[in-house]
Amino acid sequence: MSKLRLTITMSLDGYVAGPDQSEENPLGVGGMDLHEWFFPLKEFREMHGEAGGEVNASSAVVEQRLANVGATIMGRNMFGPIRGPWRDESWRGWWGENPPFHQPVFVLTHHSREPLQMQGGTAFHFVSDGIESALRQAKDAAQGRDVALAGGAAVVNQYLAAGLVDEIDISIAPLILGSGQRLFADLDHGRLKLTQIRAVDAPDVTHIKYKVS
Amino acid sequence: MSKLRLTITMSLDGYVAGPDQSEENPLGVGGMDLHEWFFPLKEFREMHGEAGGEVNASSAVVEQRLANVGATIMGRNMFGPIRGPWRDESWRGWWGENPPFHQPVFVLTHHSREPLQMQGGTAFHFVSDGIESALRQAKDAAQGRDVALAGGAAVVNQYLAAGLVDEIDISIAPLILGSGQRLFADLDHGRLKLTQIRAVDAPDVTHIKYKVS
Repeated sequence: MSKLRLTITMSLDGYVAGPDQSEENPLGVGGMDLHEWFFPLKEFREMHGEAGGEVNASSAVVEQRLANVGATIMGRNMFGPIRGPWRDESWRGWWGENPPFHQPVFVLTHHSREPLQMQGGTAFHFVSDGIESALRQAKDAAQGRDVALAGGAAVVNQYLAAGLVDEIDISIAPLILGSGQRLFADLDHGRLKLTQIRAVDAPDVTHIKYKVS
Repeated sequence: MSKLRLTITMSLDGYVAGPDQSEENPLGVGGMDLHEWFFPLKEFREMHGEAGGEVNASSAVVEQRLANVGATIMGRNMFGPIRGPWRDESWRGWWGENPPFHQPVFVLTHHSREPLQMQGGTAFHFVSDGIESALRQAKDAAQGRDVALAGGAAVVNQYLAAGLVDEIDISIAPLILGSGQRLFADLDHGRLKLTQIRAVDAPDVTHIKYKVS
């Protein structure tokens, strides 16, 4: 059955973006440092149409995360800026003309908008009627494959609170950010037991995969 | 040189104790679940003077954490209850007459009190003149060996903010607690870069060791 799989990188103190996010600095102060393990990889370069790059213990994890995924769900801030040209329909997101997804991406937003077909197979669909609708649409688009939940924190927390996440594959970056967008914040629905599937010790990062009970 | 080493277990969402801590439930609701990986181990049973128990991938980590440690620092809530008989000098802490430390333990508190000599080599010393004094006393007692920083969250955060922690060896339990005592909370001193030393995939837990830059 098609699963909803959270794949995200977090600092040891629980942040997926630093403070003071802006159009110039979408991941906030220090937020880019979260992904330092990812940038040198062959798999990262391939996603961006570039050759070369490193293969290390993270490579198999990235391959597993991309395998059998047919669609992605993200929050509106992951598509576009906190403030800025979002309401301008000419704005085509952070990701350039050839985004690294190469498949349908469902963007949760309060402002509906026509779909955006990008180069390389990425299409952004804007969903304004809630997380369950976005999940339904993403599963339809994925045609039996899984759906990736990419962030940010607010959207992830909504899906977790609704009990809709099947798997968490999280990368813990060696970094204390101190403030910013905190994953798992205000989960006032109480406790959630996880089953640890595997942990991987990789250069500058630890990847842990859980099944959500 | 003698190091200050944080050794602690945290939920994936950053809590080292659950909500509603009380004299009956010192780790709060769900807090005992954090340590489920630890209880079956031979090393845990030995610390409590019992035979038997399991040996698995966590065993070597626990041995490393105990090795070369000559004293322990903890917060007042780890010694005694949030409320309750603390001010009564007859109160001898949570840990029974033969606590599992078997060495000097320095308890940070606002209320000074005479030292408590327990069975099995544990002596509780109560320090009311701040974290630096506690560290100095613990290093003296450790006689060249390292000092373990055991928690709770508030004390750890003070030592981190002061730049006094040399190493973090953290166990991440497969659990989302949702609320409670959050480690690394309100570290408004800004970012802290860590160097990942190793990660261990063990039954029901991941252990990650960092050097603090």
